[in-house]
Amino acid sequence: MPGSIETVAIFGVGLIGGSFALALRKAGFEGRIVGVSSPATIDRAVEWKIIDAGAAEAEAASTADLIYLAEPIHRILERLSNLNRSVRPEALITDVGSTKSTIVERASREIDRCQFLGGHPLAGKERRGIEAADADLFAGRKYVLTPRSSADTSTPMAACFIDWIGKIGAIPVLADPEEHDRAVAYTSHLPQLASTALAALLPEKGRTIDISGPALLDMTRLALSPFETWHDIFTTNKPAIQQALSNYIRTLQAFSVMLDSQRMREQFERAAAAAKRLRPDD
Amino acid sequence: MPGSIETVAIFGVGLIGGSFALALRKAGFEGRIVGVSSPATIDRAVEWKIIDAGAAEAEAASTADLIYLAEPIHRILERLSNLNRSVRPEALITDVGSTKSTIVERASREIDRCQFLGGHPLAGKERRGIEAADADLFAGRKYVLTPRSSADTSTPMAACFIDWIGKIGAIPVLADPEEHDRAVAYTSHLPQLASTALAALLPEKGRTIDISGPALLDMTRLALSPFETWHDIFTTNKPAIQQALSNYIRTLQAFSVMLDSQRMREQFERAAAAAKRLRPDD
Repeated sequence: MPGSIETVAIFGVGLIGGSFALALRKAGFEGRIVGVSSPATIDRAVEWKIIDAGAAEAEAASTADLIYLAEPIHRILERLSNLNRSVRPEALITDVGSTKSTIVERASREIDRCQFLGGHPLAGKERRGIEAADADLFAGRKYVLTPRSSADTSTPMAACFIDWIGKIGAIPVLADPEEHDRAVAYTSHLPQLASTALAALLPEKGRTIDISGPALLDMTRLALSPFETWHDIFTTNKPAIQQALSNYIRTLQAFSVMLDSQRMREQFERAAAAAKRLRPDD
Repeated sequence: MPGSIETVAIFGVGLIGGSFALALRKAGFEGRIVGVSSPATIDRAVEWKIIDAGAAEAEAASTADLIYLAEPIHRILERLSNLNRSVRPEALITDVGSTKSTIVERASREIDRCQFLGGHPLAGKERRGIEAADADLFAGRKYVLTPRSSADTSTPMAACFIDWIGKIGAIPVLADPEEHDRAVAYTSHLPQLASTALAALLPEKGRTIDISGPALLDMTRLALSPFETWHDIFTTNKPAIQQALSNYIRTLQAFSVMLDSQRMREQFERAAAAAKRLRPDD
């Protein structure tokens, strides 16, 4: 029997937190949504009818059925150390941090008065902040959940939360936290570093800017990302990222050796096959 | 005083060669355009009014004012070894190969009965072949020319050709062949290898396909490129590409060491600044 979510407390009413509030409303959520954010953000979020009201941490935590932590990872970790004393036993705490092992481990040490279920919606935008909040941000996107055991997704409140994930158009995907972190090291963190390294090499070459085409634009788009988000990711997923970097470097070294041989054909074919698998609809 | 181009012979009536013919016509070229290509391609190119007629190599070479080599690099190199005996002394031979040192060097050994001026239009499409030919392919794109001396661009026929490059909407850019090859090693060849290496790592990881977002799509788009084009590039620009790979690997190794330190901020800022410079209009 699914539980019922009457009050949601969103910690961090930015792109993700604000979009989750808008998406809930669009999907028919009729309960109360409170926000924990800076006064300026709360003012805008209330004015724009994204949330019903602002609240202090303890007040929000003590009244919410769903506590949605949508701040940067280091703030999520701080919240987890504070929330336990205030939460209601029926509540569910979830988060949107893009690394999971550190957060899930912290939650399992700090949260014992209610349930915690880690999450990572694979949704984003180049722009951030509440101004970019969008009721359709999650539509058609995967929403990873990282239960510690299968029981974690079948409690009444977790079942209800997962139900809402489906109603906002997202696709719930279950993963072990460590498995998640190893995967995103390859699919998100390594691509970011590969793009940043490529762009970081450019200023050293005098003419490169003059002779470049659309390929370089594709490959340096991620390099525009602000460092703030990434520092938390690098801090909380260091071994997996270093492992991915090491494999990537080894692959590039092999490419350099076989560069003008036909053995490169096999690498291109394997890479093209993997790239095609990522685009099942093309 | 610019020369006059009455007859153009296009060797290789594919995406680039076919687009050049269509672009010339659209820009008002009223002379004759002959094509040297497979019989099937010639049939289509004539039927679609992309060219006026097909011709054999020697016939095309002996009647053309502008010989436009738009085949793969290894075919361009073969043509350069054959064309000298057939060309008219007033003619200009140019090519579209995406590496320039090897081609320019081959031309300087083989071509002495007319002028050669290397070229590299920074234009492309995911689809190839005459079916993808497009009169606007060059519009707004850079068109690199690699003269061996400044006199190479001021002969009457070269001046006339450069004039037509402007008329088809492209932006002529002059570069030394070696300088060109060092630049594209960073701006085109390294991005390709970075994307291929990233995609080649994916199949080894079980869950990666399930947990990936738009960043990975951006970074693996180039990995869809067919190997055929690239083998010629790797063969003819090996030292510059290996140098770029080596600097890239060194950068990634440094990233791995400084990953969770604030020193990464400087790298991100430098990379973002370079990525922004590539997008002056954003």
